[in-house]
Amino acid sequence: MPLAIGVDIGGTKVSAGVVDDDGRVIDRELRPTPGHDVAETEAIIVEVVKELAARHEVAAVGVGAAGWIANDHATVLFSPHLAWRDEPLHAALSEQIGLKLVVENDANAAAWAEYRYGAAQGQPVIVCVTLGTGIGGGLVVDGNLYRGAYGIACEYGHMTLVPDGRRCACGNRGCWEMYASGRALARDAQELVEESPMAAERLLELAAASPDGLSGPVVTAAAAEGDPAAEAICTTMGRWLGRGLANLAAVLDPSIFVIGGGVSQAGELLLRPAREEFVHTLTGRGFRPVADIVSAALGPDSGLVGAADIARRA
Amino acid sequence: MPLAIGVDIGGTKVSAGVVDDDGRVIDRELRPTPGHDVAETEAIIVEVVKELAARHEVAAVGVGAAGWIANDHATVLFSPHLAWRDEPLHAALSEQIGLKLVVENDANAAAWAEYRYGAAQGQPVIVCVTLGTGIGGGLVVDGNLYRGAYGIACEYGHMTLVPDGRRCACGNRGCWEMYASGRALARDAQELVEESPMAAERLLELAAASPDGLSGPVVTAAAAEGDPAAEAICTTMGRWLGRGLANLAAVLDPSIFVIGGGVSQAGELLLRPAREEFVHTLTGRGFRPVADIVSAALGPDSGLVGAADIARRA
Repeated sequence: MPLAIGVDIGGTKVSAGVVDDDGRVIDRELRPTPGHDVAETEAIIVEVVKELAARHEVAAVGVGAAGWIANDHATVLFSPHLAWRDEPLHAALSEQIGLKLVVENDANAAAWAEYRYGAAQGQPVIVCVTLGTGIGGGLVVDGNLYRGAYGIACEYGHMTLVPDGRRCACGNRGCWEMYASGRALARDAQELVEESPMAAERLLELAAASPDGLSGPVVTAAAAEGDPAAEAICTTMGRWLGRGLANLAAVLDPSIFVIGGGVSQAGELLLRPAREEFVHTLTGRGFRPVADIVSAALGPDSGLVGAADIARRA
Repeated sequence: MPLAIGVDIGGTKVSAGVVDDDGRVIDRELRPTPGHDVAETEAIIVEVVKELAARHEVAAVGVGAAGWIANDHATVLFSPHLAWRDEPLHAALSEQIGLKLVVENDANAAAWAEYRYGAAQGQPVIVCVTLGTGIGGGLVVDGNLYRGAYGIACEYGHMTLVPDGRRCACGNRGCWEMYASGRALARDAQELVEESPMAAERLLELAAASPDGLSGPVVTAAAAEGDPAAEAICTTMGRWLGRGLANLAAVLDPSIFVIGGGVSQAGELLLRPAREEFVHTLTGRGFRPVADIVSAALGPDSGLVGAADIARRA
């Protein structure tokens, strides 16, 4: 298989790399995402691809975008966290890039990478949950990405877990990602600071004394140090993670759940309560095989590695 | 295609028929289900199959059971509403039946029938929701039944829609089927009778003056007459139906939802509020195609027709 370029467009950064047939990233470029400017985001994609393509002989470019990609693999229908609405991304990029180009949902790309090179190799049914600002989702069944009728399946983060619950960026209420994501960690920490600043002392220190500095990474860092308040916030989120996974097991019956994304760096601080809540709320527990819940193996590169591999196989 | 026998084992009755290649039932047998006696249920299956096989030349037998069938297509792992726990149903039946035998989840069979002969012919991604005592579910993707890693996918009725909500027969709390099923209609009517017997006058009449007589069919019959209390109960259930469908759209992105089962006889009394709530709670609404929500076409025969067709193609 030839080299391919993968580009992962997240809510905060554009990460691109040249990927070989073993899933290794042999060169890379990184830029911040201008989230609310579509044209500028597209210009940055073209720029990083041209830089990498000048340095390597590549056969294809895969762009993984944090949006809902129609099943034409060309149009971004909607993005809860970016400005794309019915955006013809393939058309906007392909002439300038001048290489075979595939546009893919970023979480689909990550799931594909974990199946091909990561924690889920050889598994028959893989549910991949990417915990970042929100939740991304992917499903690989018998070696094929599941895309649904219109290309927008696996938006797990927008299952309603709490009827009429917290307002979500998608316009709904009570979405899973409002309770299990980097944003959920940050919000819970901010609430703690408001209600009980004494309990949140260490969190506030790490946030440079400002509630606005209380991000997901701050919470997971404090929890990793052993701060009890931060650990409790991670446990709460881990339980919500487990509840959502139990819902997905009822629908999809996977053999494995792979948990990736930046927030998954918290590791067992999240996964232990997630597994406990999963078996506590799994329908038919005791009478069915229990799917494994494991950390993603590829880290922050999974999106770009998967996008590159999907593109060169297209 | 040759004739095949389909047997549908529901919570209350065993319905069997001889099915031709056009999906027509050309002969049939019906028995009550002895729900809590496994051996007796199996004896009844053998009995109806032998009676039908004596009258027709059949090539295969498909048994659709209201249980979770392992991916060996032989073992019933669990049944929320029947006594089966890790029951080797195929082994128990096959010697006595002496024909090619396939054991299938009843709602999978119904979904297959709607794809082959019913309301979802030609659709790429079909979610079938069977509203009976509980909720059964099926998914047909590009002409294949989706079964998950262990054969027990599509247990939609056991998604948690209400955290720590009503206790369900599966052992969990807050399952969708506690809010959208025949049981949910009956319970809501019983609560109305307790709290406001005046409002429930017509419902009580139809239930022969006893709250125990308040079943799903009584509620839908009263609603069909125009009884406002019964209509309100159907509307409430229809909204829960729509909420669950919106969750399924987030995960599965189907082109069509087919709503079958006894409770679906209520038709638009349920489907109208279901569609309204679906578009009200669908993530990304306005930026995606909206799946159709239609009534099943095959009525109570869908399970046996699907089981027969699956068996003859196996």
